[in-house]
Amino acid sequence: MKKRTLPLAKVYGLLETGPVVLVTTSRKGRPNVMTQSWHTMMEFEPPLVGCVFAAGSVTFDNLKATKEGVINIPTRELAAKTVKCGNVSGRKVDKLEAFGLTPAPAARVEAPLIAECYASLECKVVDTRMVDKYGFFVLEVVQAWVDPSKKNPRTLHHRGNGLFMVAGPSVKLRSRMK
Amino acid sequence: MKKRTLPLAKVYGLLETGPVVLVTTSRKGRPNVMTQSWHTMMEFEPPLVGCVFAAGSVTFDNLKATKEGVINIPTRELAAKTVKCGNVSGRKVDKLEAFGLTPAPAARVEAPLIAECYASLECKVVDTRMVDKYGFFVLEVVQAWVDPSKKNPRTLHHRGNGLFMVAGPSVKLRSRMK
Repeated sequence: MKKRTLPLAKVYGLLETGPVVLVTTSRKGRPNVMTQSWHTMMEFEPPLVGCVFAAGSVTFDNLKATKEGVINIPTRELAAKTVKCGNVSGRKVDKLEAFGLTPAPAARVEAPLIAECYASLECKVVDTRMVDKYGFFVLEVVQAWVDPSKKNPRTLHHRGNGLFMVAGPSVKLRSRMK
Repeated sequence: MKKRTLPLAKVYGLLETGPVVLVTTSRKGRPNVMTQSWHTMMEFEPPLVGCVFAAGSVTFDNLKATKEGVINIPTRELAAKTVKCGNVSGRKVDKLEAFGLTPAPAARVEAPLIAECYASLECKVVDTRMVDKYGFFVLEVVQAWVDPSKKNPRTLHHRGNGLFMVAGPSVKLRSRMK
């Protein structure tokens, strides 16, 4: 694994761009992975991330039961596998194994990091008050990992119905935005 | 204005990619605009969008008071103006006028659309239970507008500290993701 620890105060820069992510959970020794696009930063530090999951999905049930998971961020090379993880339910298959994604041990949670993803954020569920109505979980990132060689990661961004925008070039602007 | 009505069921495709947006509000005849990156889709139809705003900002106060606003999506050509709107408080200046953004009347809310933005989503605040703790408002999109000529909009995506990723090319994948 090429990833190194990232200071928690820098996590927001990974998620503000709105990448498609692969969320891993684990329950009773059974890991699962789900493709997800509905997330937002909610606080810089400790980093809070709000995420929506469909009621009845394995990830939804695992998050409710175990209160933890990992947000992994894939890039262009992983597009086909990322889509496959979104097309199948984890009740039927071990998606990590079926689609050739390598689990790596996390430091603070049971759920695995995905070795092929350039960044992985270990999370604990800290607020469930909007889970019943919207499937909206508030997660706190407790440990962050990133591959420091990926300066301009070609993340995937869903435009709907299987159309994905791939991250383009970066520009630096004179912003006071944090 | 080149924008046309967009069916509400298609709104999610505009926001899932995580673009930087310009949120307009209006109170007592005074419009305001703020740059924002912390938002997520929460439901397909009617489209629900969760957005975080800093307590004490004009937008935060206006949303609390008027319960409505507009999410406008800028592209690459508007990068400099978008950043300027994030650097200054609306208590000091009329940012729309100061930065040359053209207000256009909305159909269902007081706040203006921004004519230069390729898409605009008129919203009503529908849930405030996470406002006090996180500044998190749940907005329902009640009317959506998009410029149909923009098939692959070069949206802006903040990576932190004034570094912005510009949307790259799109790829179609065999996804069952809605």
